Amino acid sequence: MSIIVAVEGWSPADWIEGLKAVAPDRAVLTPGDDVDLAAVDYALVWKPRPGYLASLPNLKVIFSLGAGVDHLTSDPDLPDLPVVRIVDPDLTGRMTEWVLLQVLMHHRQQRAYDAFQARKTWKSLRQWSSADVRVGIMGLGVLGIDAARALSGLGFPVAGWSRSPKTEPGIDCYSGEAGLGPFLARTDILVVLLPLTEDTRGILDASLVDRLAKDGPLGGPVIVNGGRGGLQVEDDIVAALKDGRLRAASLDVFVTEPLPAESPLWDAPNLTITPHVAAESDPLALSRYVARQIAAFERGEPLQNLVDRSRGY
Amino acid sequence: MSIIVAVEGWSPADWIEGLKAVAPDRAVLTPGDDVDLAAVDYALVWKPRPGYLASLPNLKVIFSLGAGVDHLTSDPDLPDLPVVRIVDPDLTGRMTEWVLLQVLMHHRQQRAYDAFQARKTWKSLRQWSSADVRVGIMGLGVLGIDAARALSGLGFPVAGWSRSPKTEPGIDCYSGEAGLGPFLARTDILVVLLPLTEDTRGILDASLVDRLAKDGPLGGPVIVNGGRGGLQVEDDIVAALKDGRLRAASLDVFVTEPLPAESPLWDAPNLTITPHVAAESDPLALSRYVARQIAAFERGEPLQNLVDRSRGY
Repeated sequence: MSIIVAVEGWSPADWIEGLKAVAPDRAVLTPGDDVDLAAVDYALVWKPRPGYLASLPNLKVIFSLGAGVDHLTSDPDLPDLPVVRIVDPDLTGRMTEWVLLQVLMHHRQQRAYDAFQARKTWKSLRQWSSADVRVGIMGLGVLGIDAARALSGLGFPVAGWSRSPKTEPGIDCYSGEAGLGPFLARTDILVVLLPLTEDTRGILDASLVDRLAKDGPLGGPVIVNGGRGGLQVEDDIVAALKDGRLRAASLDVFVTEPLPAESPLWDAPNLTITPHVAAESDPLALSRYVARQIAAFERGEPLQNLVDRSRGY
Repeated sequence: MSIIVAVEGWSPADWIEGLKAVAPDRAVLTPGDDVDLAAVDYALVWKPRPGYLASLPNLKVIFSLGAGVDHLTSDPDLPDLPVVRIVDPDLTGRMTEWVLLQVLMHHRQQRAYDAFQARKTWKSLRQWSSADVRVGIMGLGVLGIDAARALSGLGFPVAGWSRSPKTEPGIDCYSGEAGLGPFLARTDILVVLLPLTEDTRGILDASLVDRLAKDGPLGGPVIVNGGRGGLQVEDDIVAALKDGRLRAASLDVFVTEPLPAESPLWDAPNLTITPHVAAESDPLALSRYVARQIAAFERGEPLQNLVDRSRGY
């Protein structure tokens, strides 16, 4: 009746504390402890060491931290067990906050005003209306839908794109390869909340930038990526920012994290970098969610938010 | 049947163009033109020269640009005519965008991440939830209510304070002198959307700062003022930012505008300055609104959004 906390590149202490607080009757361990591997029923994981999960013979459920599961499905020895994605409302709300903040910074020309303030210059710029800025959301999962609704509520015309067709009131929905071109061509600010799969890896490249709308009020297209770093071809993004094909960008995720000091992204113009904090998890809130799911599973009820491994998300 | 456009410190060209587009049957003039004063029926004004409106013998209605009317009621010779405040939805939406942007920048520690980025430093900070940040809105007019609803929708616990008692679903409403202390004591981020009256002039001073909550997650209280510069005691705000009693602030309005180059605000720490652009008006949209009101008035219908001059707003 143990829970193993296997979170690499992230201190496990907060998670252990959170799980112990909400599940005081369980042993909560990490791979470094003296673990009875056969006694582990559940695993809470972020980038677990490949092969580690396969070493737990009685594991029943894998709980995957974060919205994406590519950190897990890259393990060739991943056991064939249910994988539950952590999608609590707090995480969704945090992502929507980050998306709204970045979209509003671009829309309201905050970086230009920051530069004026640094020079003690009082200067106002023509401000277009939110009704004139077409936002496009790539990825209409839980996160994409929530961000789309919030942006639509502020008066932005919002469209969404997803692999398979979806419908959402007030959102103009495009799908599949055929829908991608028209979707990009009507988009001034592209918000990316896609999962990382073999289909989406490197999708944010020079050709995608060139397919975005060029006639919007911002003076060129803007990309806001809160999804996964592997979606980006970072050299293409740097080049497009430098020559102005891309007006600006906000990136929270990167191909290599932490972003290396020698990355040309640090010096790219009109780029806002945040260090993978758009939807950082609150250990106590997520521990409660995991404990609720374990209790339901042991009562024989179905697990929520299961990953479809054939799709990769 | 003329409309006079008397906007000081603001180019009248966009307004003249807007009004001509929507009211092609009227003469649209400015005080510098060869004006037949007796032919002027309507005036569209922003900070008109004191006494000018009194020189128009057949003036029927005054349309006041911007949300506040203190720029007008300070004229001792203001004729006793209906004053219509311009409150179109676009203006309200623009203010809500600015308020959301500034609140989210403080809540999500964007300025700290900006500083890390400038040093090419990858570092994440503990991020509290919106549920832990108590936002308080001073002023529950059209602008205050809209901002309160949007912030509440993002999960912030929102309270409001107004001179006279109000109720609004989901917003904890305080009022009057007796309600001010409890309202300030539970507020981490204070959003100010008050009108400027003799009661509110200088209300944002050292004693108000000291009454705000000190135990919130941001490490001290934050003020976001999109109302009027005259609400501020600017020396008090500079001193409170310098010694940390105020954690941060965003100001769009100032006692003297343009903000003079020698103002100590330019050098105050943790302060974001925008040059009175929070809810800058779109001349064409507002011209349509004015034309609709004139047409209704001439059909004998009541004017909308009349200023109550006994209250000053």
